[in-house]
Amino acid sequence: MNYLDFYTNQSVLITGGLGFIGANLARRLVDLGARVTLVDSLIPDYGGNRFNIAGYEDRLHINIADVRDPYSMRALVQGQDVLFNLAGQVSHIDSMTDPFSDLEINARAQLSILEACRHENPEIKVVYAGTRQQYGKPDYLPLDEKHPQHPTDVNGVNKLAGEWYHIVYHNAYGLRATSLRLTNTYGPRQLMKHNRQGFIGWFVRLAVEGKELQLYGDGQQLRDLTHVDDVVDAFLRAGASDAVNGQVFNLGGSAPVSLLSLAQMLVEIAGQGSVRLVPWPEARKRIDIGDVYSSYARIQNVLGWQPTIDLRSGLAQTLAYYQQHHQHYWKDEH
Amino acid sequence: MNYLDFYTNQSVLITGGLGFIGANLARRLVDLGARVTLVDSLIPDYGGNRFNIAGYEDRLHINIADVRDPYSMRALVQGQDVLFNLAGQVSHIDSMTDPFSDLEINARAQLSILEACRHENPEIKVVYAGTRQQYGKPDYLPLDEKHPQHPTDVNGVNKLAGEWYHIVYHNAYGLRATSLRLTNTYGPRQLMKHNRQGFIGWFVRLAVEGKELQLYGDGQQLRDLTHVDDVVDAFLRAGASDAVNGQVFNLGGSAPVSLLSLAQMLVEIAGQGSVRLVPWPEARKRIDIGDVYSSYARIQNVLGWQPTIDLRSGLAQTLAYYQQHHQHYWKDEH
Repeated sequence: MNYLDFYTNQSVLITGGLGFIGANLARRLVDLGARVTLVDSLIPDYGGNRFNIAGYEDRLHINIADVRDPYSMRALVQGQDVLFNLAGQVSHIDSMTDPFSDLEINARAQLSILEACRHENPEIKVVYAGTRQQYGKPDYLPLDEKHPQHPTDVNGVNKLAGEWYHIVYHNAYGLRATSLRLTNTYGPRQLMKHNRQGFIGWFVRLAVEGKELQLYGDGQQLRDLTHVDDVVDAFLRAGASDAVNGQVFNLGGSAPVSLLSLAQMLVEIAGQGSVRLVPWPEARKRIDIGDVYSSYARIQNVLGWQPTIDLRSGLAQTLAYYQQHHQHYWKDEH
Repeated sequence: MNYLDFYTNQSVLITGGLGFIGANLARRLVDLGARVTLVDSLIPDYGGNRFNIAGYEDRLHINIADVRDPYSMRALVQGQDVLFNLAGQVSHIDSMTDPFSDLEINARAQLSILEACRHENPEIKVVYAGTRQQYGKPDYLPLDEKHPQHPTDVNGVNKLAGEWYHIVYHNAYGLRATSLRLTNTYGPRQLMKHNRQGFIGWFVRLAVEGKELQLYGDGQQLRDLTHVDDVVDAFLRAGASDAVNGQVFNLGGSAPVSLLSLAQMLVEIAGQGSVRLVPWPEARKRIDIGDVYSSYARIQNVLGWQPTIDLRSGLAQTLAYYQQHHQHYWKDEH
């Protein structure tokens, strides 16, 4: 069976379902005929945003709850066929200023979600969103799944723990869990109201606003970017396959790009804004990880996934989305 | 300066200080002229035992507190030169039946200890007790520090997180933290009242009691063992060196030994007991990790540490200790 047909009439639960990746995944799943329930706590500084499911409100179920609440999760996993487990605290900066909230959401809540699955629905299929930040500063490039994990911040440590609980619950209890380690994801429906969730959303916003994009140092640091539609496709493939249970997979982008090239491309497509190089702030320099990009060879081999959206057209589509809908993503300054 | 002289008049805090390794370390530090404070919560099923510091009660300070209590830890780290951070939930079995307590002690409490150090005593030197269980089932042997970490149980995941918070706090805040990844430690003052903290203490007890030592399968699984006096020596070396900050080191044993040989050696030295091979229980077989032993080349290079106590004489000394003091470690059955 085609992995897209798999979702017809499947009951699917998405934690972080009103967030960036969750909402894009939810929309796709509804289109594929799935019965979709979103769990989201709508914490103000996080990515949940009701506008993200505009036009789909009547075709899915929204359940406001916090993944840290073990009782809600025990009730919510019942009767579900697939869980896309995307809720997380994703700001590396916030993980250092408030390490305990990061631990509660990215580690403790993951354990309680897995306990809920194990006790209430041991047949459920679980796909977790890991991150290439688990690897830390690369020993070699591109990062493959055998690269040692030596994260550079509290968020990376907790994401690592959250992922490995999934693998342990597979190995010890047979839970059908897998993890996709995401790299920089961009596209419509991202959090844009502050700059603590990574550079890409912030750069896009500055380009839409016609402002100055600032880069540290010479801007030659390489990164890979994945369009959210490609990320959604990876989750759909992983959720429909039992070949991936107990395993972890990198996602990746088509080709590494320097931050400077990326910023220039955004300004060029937007037809406004500017790019400026500034010296490294000492505190940021100390935790910088240099060039980083991932190999997606493993998921390509096992699931046939590869990025399909080229960077320039993906960015153009992304800019167009926020040019039209920016009022739902940030407050304009006057 | 010799690393032993370093401790004269140093203020040293030991979490888990009434436990197996903590108490052996405390006794040695008192003998070296350090001012020693032990933190222990004396949780009944854990390793804390007041008898472990018999004869030293008046030469050190005991502070009963739980490392999960952030306020106590903030007060306790003040004014200390060195923190040996040994408190932990060490039962792999318990980590699966009660994963949240394991997370609270091995992950969350570590974060709050590090926050306490960062805010109250940023100059403190910290040595953490990691574990080779962080590596999981070996990809190759012996395990070195570059071996990927893919733990097999919740305890391994949380110990990994606890260790990496230490490294992150070094890298981000300059905290002088390091981790020693312990393998199987044996010797006087171990928890022996139940068999959920690993095989070695339990085998020693069965030999002292003249009972049957049961091994799964053919008993040919290889393990390495370190005598607690050698482990203490490694902590002393690491605590006195700034060359190890931000780094992790394996400990190890002299030569890998099969569980069958180990059991036979114990029965032979004790002059009583017996050894029996039994089939693998299904639940244990599924999480078994086969042969496992570590390379200690890295700590040997950097700190000159190596195991010095050969297995047979170490076991003989260990058996003699428990033959004399067993009433302080377990209740005799009648």
